[in-house]
Amino acid sequence: MLNPFGSKSGLIVRSAKPFNAEPPLGQLISDYITPQSAFYVRSHGEVPRLDASTHRLRVTGRVQQPLELSMEALRQEFPWRRVNAVMQCAGNRRGDLLQVAPVAGDPWSAGAIGNAEWGGVALADVLRAAGTEDGAELHVAFNSLDDCEANGERFRFGVSIPMAKAMAPEVLLALEMNGETLAPQHGFPLRAVVPGFAGVRSAKWLAEVSVQDRPSDAEPQARDYKLFPPQVREETADWEKGLTINDMPLNAAICDPEPFADLRTGTVTLRGWAVATARQVARVDVSTDGGRNWGQAELQHDSAAPWSWTLWTMQVDLPPGEHELVVRAWDSAGQTQPALPDDTWNWKGYLNAAWHRVRVRVV
Amino acid sequence: MLNPFGSKSGLIVRSAKPFNAEPPLGQLISDYITPQSAFYVRSHGEVPRLDASTHRLRVTGRVQQPLELSMEALRQEFPWRRVNAVMQCAGNRRGDLLQVAPVAGDPWSAGAIGNAEWGGVALADVLRAAGTEDGAELHVAFNSLDDCEANGERFRFGVSIPMAKAMAPEVLLALEMNGETLAPQHGFPLRAVVPGFAGVRSAKWLAEVSVQDRPSDAEPQARDYKLFPPQVREETADWEKGLTINDMPLNAAICDPEPFADLRTGTVTLRGWAVATARQVARVDVSTDGGRNWGQAELQHDSAAPWSWTLWTMQVDLPPGEHELVVRAWDSAGQTQPALPDDTWNWKGYLNAAWHRVRVRVV
Repeated sequence: MLNPFGSKSGLIVRSAKPFNAEPPLGQLISDYITPQSAFYVRSHGEVPRLDASTHRLRVTGRVQQPLELSMEALRQEFPWRRVNAVMQCAGNRRGDLLQVAPVAGDPWSAGAIGNAEWGGVALADVLRAAGTEDGAELHVAFNSLDDCEANGERFRFGVSIPMAKAMAPEVLLALEMNGETLAPQHGFPLRAVVPGFAGVRSAKWLAEVSVQDRPSDAEPQARDYKLFPPQVREETADWEKGLTINDMPLNAAICDPEPFADLRTGTVTLRGWAVATARQVARVDVSTDGGRNWGQAELQHDSAAPWSWTLWTMQVDLPPGEHELVVRAWDSAGQTQPALPDDTWNWKGYLNAAWHRVRVRVV
Repeated sequence: MLNPFGSKSGLIVRSAKPFNAEPPLGQLISDYITPQSAFYVRSHGEVPRLDASTHRLRVTGRVQQPLELSMEALRQEFPWRRVNAVMQCAGNRRGDLLQVAPVAGDPWSAGAIGNAEWGGVALADVLRAAGTEDGAELHVAFNSLDDCEANGERFRFGVSIPMAKAMAPEVLLALEMNGETLAPQHGFPLRAVVPGFAGVRSAKWLAEVSVQDRPSDAEPQARDYKLFPPQVREETADWEKGLTINDMPLNAAICDPEPFADLRTGTVTLRGWAVATARQVARVDVSTDGGRNWGQAELQHDSAAPWSWTLWTMQVDLPPGEHELVVRAWDSAGQTQPALPDDTWNWKGYLNAAWHRVRVRVV
């Protein structure tokens, strides 16, 4: 499929239109901070080509003083903040659910995730400048400039987050990623960054922040990105009853070796990522026999960056033959992941956090 | 076994010395607020018989002004607070792990948990009165008056919690439970209440609060209540490397019917509890066929009491024969529980949060 960002990006394209792509897993974890070029791209429509010098952010709704801010005004009038945070698609690892039953959406492997240093201003600072209440019942909507289409309907991208999260210091209006201007596919010139929440809430090409009494009624908020029980199907889904996906579950993946790798005998270093939003990854267990026996991985985590991911490595000696490598994480509350994709299957294929399994052969 | 609190308490005794007992599960969930008489008791030594009029709480260590407070002074000098919170033993549901392999400790069923309205003063208010820093690296130790014995060593009960939790508004120095004076077995006249953390951190018969640079070196903090990986055994356990159990995992249990109940054909109402510390219980799935198919339970939760539990009910029609009833909870991050006790087994038998299964027969 055509990759509009060039073959150099090296991303694996899951959908050409809208453009959705993820890095090869070995590349994903080669740096603790994911370069923009290796960062997964999830679009809901065409990528808008915007001019930073004329682009404006409007702050509207239940505020005392509506604002209209240029990108320069954002940089000059508010304290600059940097947050190292994971962003992850709610459908990351959806592909593993296909072995249970079909699911809707792109068959992501474990690469619809990345860890960047976001630079921008705190949403809370901007909301305070506009004069808003910290009301628990309020919602902050993000309205964007990407024209999207789903189920035959055209709509502008929009989502919302609860006011309590909007006022949290880690939530940014971001102009930069890893010290660089945002690339077009990552939301140039301005996007929301909502650490811990599913990537969809971090609206790109952001044009308006609106404080309102109820969640956004735009398609991605009202009729998508909801978690349903396993017996619900598309025909029986009542969107009002699905769980709105904000926070994401404890999860982990093996990134190296990749599935069906042929390995030589000798010591192999297994590598991957683990995430525990709102808590810490306390332990990563790795099995080379399908989950019968486990050992502990070495963890790499920037303790000064609570929203960042944990990378892990483990050295193993594998005898010749086929092996099922498995990883599972434990968080600081002693919570762990379910074993089988059957335990997490849902018709939209969201939040698959079953043990990640990679089959390899030693020759 | 002898129940020192009388046969009327109706508790099932798991250990006579120290006295450890839990209510029958049907009784446990008969009220949203658990009466003191139906609340599980976990002791580490003899129950001290204290005089509230002479008992004092000392506040010591890294404070500007050490304090010595009578119970009356606590009531009069600080704002009165009420917190509806679950308390749960770190070993709750340990009994289910025995089907995997032996574990150390009392074989609790799913009743080492209760939900009370605690009354007292905020630990943060007392610490501020003594003049302490809100330093992230500090610990607040609780030193109690119960003489305990473990592994042939005698010690006074002591534990600690991180300063960040100690300063949280939900953490109390509690004098009351459900509007009544604490019963002797629940810590009369004063105990800590640390919502969300394992019950062991909520020290009973509290005599001293000490602000210090490092965690308590008392036995229950330093050499107990730690989570180990599945391959570790008592002989290989390095206590320094275990995960200190504070926050507890998402969990759920079927309380009615009880295991091996003989039921009549017709509609049966299944009932139980679910907890998700630091998050909300978003959904409770119930299966009557061992986890092949699931339905959703009705939830009862006091949304004004985030630290309280969720009670659930589901009506089902069961045909004659044997049935395996199963419950699992989902939290607001779309996280769920592992299916098998094999997935949570550890030699100390802590934090079993596998799907709870109850086998019944319909005749």
